[in-house]
Amino acid sequence: MTGTGLSADFAAMWAHLAPIGRDGRTGGYRRFAWSRSDHDLREWFAGEVARRGLDLVEDRMGNQWAWWGDPDRDGPGLVLGSHLDSVPDGGAYDGPLGVVSALLAVDALRARGVTPDRPLGIVNFVDEEGARFGIALAGSRVITGLLDPDRARALTDADGITMAEAMRAAGRDPGAMGPDPETLRRVGTYVELHVEQGRALADLDAPVAVGTDIWPHGRWRVDLPGEANHAGTTRLEDRRDALLALAGVVQEVRRSAERRGCLATVGKVVVEPGGINAIASHATAWLDARGSNPEAVRGVIRDVTATAAESGGEVREESWTPVTTFDPALAGRLARGLGGIPLLGTGAGHDAGVLTQAGVPSAMLFVRNPTGVSHSPAEQADAADCVRGIDALTGVVIELTGAGA
Amino acid sequence: MTGTGLSADFAAMWAHLAPIGRDGRTGGYRRFAWSRSDHDLREWFAGEVARRGLDLVEDRMGNQWAWWGDPDRDGPGLVLGSHLDSVPDGGAYDGPLGVVSALLAVDALRARGVTPDRPLGIVNFVDEEGARFGIALAGSRVITGLLDPDRARALTDADGITMAEAMRAAGRDPGAMGPDPETLRRVGTYVELHVEQGRALADLDAPVAVGTDIWPHGRWRVDLPGEANHAGTTRLEDRRDALLALAGVVQEVRRSAERRGCLATVGKVVVEPGGINAIASHATAWLDARGSNPEAVRGVIRDVTATAAESGGEVREESWTPVTTFDPALAGRLARGLGGIPLLGTGAGHDAGVLTQAGVPSAMLFVRNPTGVSHSPAEQADAADCVRGIDALTGVVIELTGAGA
Repeated sequence: MTGTGLSADFAAMWAHLAPIGRDGRTGGYRRFAWSRSDHDLREWFAGEVARRGLDLVEDRMGNQWAWWGDPDRDGPGLVLGSHLDSVPDGGAYDGPLGVVSALLAVDALRARGVTPDRPLGIVNFVDEEGARFGIALAGSRVITGLLDPDRARALTDADGITMAEAMRAAGRDPGAMGPDPETLRRVGTYVELHVEQGRALADLDAPVAVGTDIWPHGRWRVDLPGEANHAGTTRLEDRRDALLALAGVVQEVRRSAERRGCLATVGKVVVEPGGINAIASHATAWLDARGSNPEAVRGVIRDVTATAAESGGEVREESWTPVTTFDPALAGRLARGLGGIPLLGTGAGHDAGVLTQAGVPSAMLFVRNPTGVSHSPAEQADAADCVRGIDALTGVVIELTGAGA
Repeated sequence: MTGTGLSADFAAMWAHLAPIGRDGRTGGYRRFAWSRSDHDLREWFAGEVARRGLDLVEDRMGNQWAWWGDPDRDGPGLVLGSHLDSVPDGGAYDGPLGVVSALLAVDALRARGVTPDRPLGIVNFVDEEGARFGIALAGSRVITGLLDPDRARALTDADGITMAEAMRAAGRDPGAMGPDPETLRRVGTYVELHVEQGRALADLDAPVAVGTDIWPHGRWRVDLPGEANHAGTTRLEDRRDALLALAGVVQEVRRSAERRGCLATVGKVVVEPGGINAIASHATAWLDARGSNPEAVRGVIRDVTATAAESGGEVREESWTPVTTFDPALAGRLARGLGGIPLLGTGAGHDAGVLTQAGVPSAMLFVRNPTGVSHSPAEQADAADCVRGIDALTGVVIELTGAGA
């Protein structure tokens, strides 16, 4: 397959996916697990897999696995892939670029007339973003035992529909959900290609990087008390305004993150009672904080806790994930094999991180994002960079499966 | 009627009202227009009216008017009253104290064996707080022509039920809603007793005051743009975080109000997309601002507009009501007649203000609120002060109707 042919094939597949689950008003994607658009994406994946003569199996959670070769007979294989679902009003690349690249890497190998010396798989992980039921990486977490299936089944979406009900409505058996060692046994190595979600590669002027680790990250809930009162009659000096306290916390989150060299964000708040003429009696903010240095992240939490305490508030940890380091030998081998491309850490969670935690040697490739914008309709990648990513992924297969031309 | 009798009667009526529409968890009231609890309150009012042998009529909007004497035959009367509905998790006194006091003032007059020389009315205005359909003072505004009935009928509650549907479900004819000159012609003077919603009387060490005016007040909407992006991967310096801009606006609202001697409050905000790991792409805040000096209030809006503009935001006026001055001769006469009690302005809207705008000479009495807390389950008034308020209201009737003992 020529570079031109790969570009044309990429453009055609991309055009085919473009309308699925796209919101006509915002131009963003709303591809939520077990929804109509998710169904269409899964059918699209099954069609692409069938066209290539690969074997498709679904695991206990509904993740789709396509196999070239038989991992049950010939031993654990190399798996490529990512996910097809999106955040609300997400971009086109986060997820689908990895799945499309895996399919086109298979085409590129075959165009060169090479066959891997061990089974090659492609996975579409279900519900990576957690946009519908609130828990990210649900597909990989359940099969690795990192998310309790009873908890997963009981998660509800905004309409009160449980994950179990949604799976049943999509024709799957939620009772089968759970750890799936049989599926994991087939995965010798996992490599996920993903659009970069920051601007590091744009600044390095490089189209592709190899991932090194996922930063330690966590979520905290900040509760700030106030005193309900009438906005038209209560003197300023008599007020305990929870929203004013919230404003101070939001600003301290940014200041502390700047001082300590982390990322820290408040993106969700709830203010009660929420009346236009009512002084806020309570405010809740959710804090997302991450960084390469866990001590710096902990320092941000200490700073924010002190600010919240000034108005009687408190900060509670909802989750904490230590650093996830991808297999260093694997990352080094890939970076060297691909001609000395950069190594890059990331603040975002990925199924490759979950598999790493479960003991599967995993790696990631990142493709340059010129603006760094992600989780937004404005997310972008140049087609030429996407083709370079597919080339790199093809090179990874050759490197790891001995499939020399 | 003796003071002791009045205290006992007040306590008994208060105990009867206490459970209606009370939320078991917060202890606050949820007495929303045309709801089940509103129905119970209206039935309670009808019962108290019937027990006193007064004539009850409902106007085109559903406001309840009880008459001692016939205003159609004997000319416009003096009307006392207030409202029985509440804000979400409101207190017991805001509204009901005025209605209960009016009923007990009638009892006090009769106990003294006096009859007013003109008709005496008691009104329960419907939907004063606007908690269900979002527009305050709907009952008085519609009958005075200050709120368009088509607009009122189309207002929806949180469940999407229109005011017209709610009225029909309560057995009323929403088609009859509209200006009601026949009802207003009966109202020669209106006097509303209300719990104070600040701490001025507590600081003055006085149990009761006469109202002078309602400050100029308005509502503004502040829209702040941001850029959706991933909280885990976007560098701090690359962010346009709408919630961070909102924090600056909320703080400037307070600082400017302090500098300019006004009241200004943000109590309601909406942040989009509202995900824990999503940088806010848009934030909206509603600003409530009031004060005795309209130029100072306008100054606050200018300050906030400048702060919003720093992050590309804008401020739009949603409503503006100039100062409403109660009939000065009436206020002076009442203050003198009641033994030289204080005069007090207020930042809160009241049906007495709407009637003043419609040309009905109106006045207010305020009863001390020891903590100043209002629109909250913690709203309080001492029973002794409530009885002093009823005494004052009785004195108002004697002063204005020549009903000397």
